Amino acid sequence: MDIHDFVQQSLGQWRSQRSAHHLAFQHFEEVRSTIDIESVPADDTEVIALCKSYDIDPDTIANPFRMTWEGESDWDEEEELKGSTLLVPVPNPNDATQGKLLRDRGYAETVPAAATFSISTEGVFTLISSYDRAAAEEKIWFVTPNLRFRVSSIKTSDGKGVLTASFSSEVRPQKVD
Amino acid sequence: MDIHDFVQQSLGQWRSQRSAHHLAFQHFEEVRSTIDIESVPADDTEVIALCKSYDIDPDTIANPFRMTWEGESDWDEEEELKGSTLLVPVPNPNDATQGKLLRDRGYAETVPAAATFSISTEGVFTLISSYDRAAAEEKIWFVTPNLRFRVSSIKTSDGKGVLTASFSSEVRPQKVD
Repeated sequence: MDIHDFVQQSLGQWRSQRSAHHLAFQHFEEVRSTIDIESVPADDTEVIALCKSYDIDPDTIANPFRMTWEGESDWDEEEELKGSTLLVPVPNPNDATQGKLLRDRGYAETVPAAATFSISTEGVFTLISSYDRAAAEEKIWFVTPNLRFRVSSIKTSDGKGVLTASFSSEVRPQKVD
Repeated sequence: MDIHDFVQQSLGQWRSQRSAHHLAFQHFEEVRSTIDIESVPADDTEVIALCKSYDIDPDTIANPFRMTWEGESDWDEEEELKGSTLLVPVPNPNDATQGKLLRDRGYAETVPAAATFSISTEGVFTLISSYDRAAAEEKIWFVTPNLRFRVSSIKTSDGKGVLTASFSSEVRPQKVD
């Protein structure tokens, strides 16, 4: 599986259950949300602008997509659980199982953040994002064509402290033909 | 990482937070537990008996261990969340990153169940167990030496329906020297 297959398989609307574990306090948080993943044309104005902000040649990108989410947490009702982000994969020239992933908004910060991805021979997509004081790792894989699992963790940048871990099961309700 | 390293790194006492997702009903279950993983001698009477019940030559096994757990669920207080199981890896003759895992009690059934494991180049341990009417898949990896993640799912044996998914974050409190 390479980044083209991975994005293709991810398109559609997903119903997500997410559990966050706050490790220091052994606290659980439960989030239910709907996630839409849509393909975006490679010559879209926002895609071109994002490439420019990262100094990336738009001819080297593959399968841009937009992720939009809206959800409810059992924990913090003030929390903003609604958003949208544009994601632009930049596969390595000779190996589309590895590369960079540009986005216009990180999960943890509002400034643009570059991230690197790799897809294992078993089909596990791993994304590593570095921020000023923290690093995030995310693993995503398909259990069936209509079920994805996603595991994320945020570490302090020295790699010693893992602050939160979260797990999402994402179901794409099957279309009835 | 091979099965020897994996078992070695797993020894000790772990504090676990587990979230189970019941996918059809979007229900969440929260479990807090303590897990002890201890090495068992290869010539232990129970190990030899387990090998015999699977018709496995005891000379081909590696790093037997016992897992004991005790926990509390927020959901079903009647549920038995206490138990212990003996696990005996049988690595392939020329490749200790793959093999079988014998145990004296499965997670989902009480009859002996054989399972196959493989460890990816990225260090993700995957275990697949087949039962009469269901199959279980478990992935375990170390995020730091003292933090493991474990993701499990149970499918119907035709592979179409995934019934439950669960995620555990397991912390081994660091020893103070």
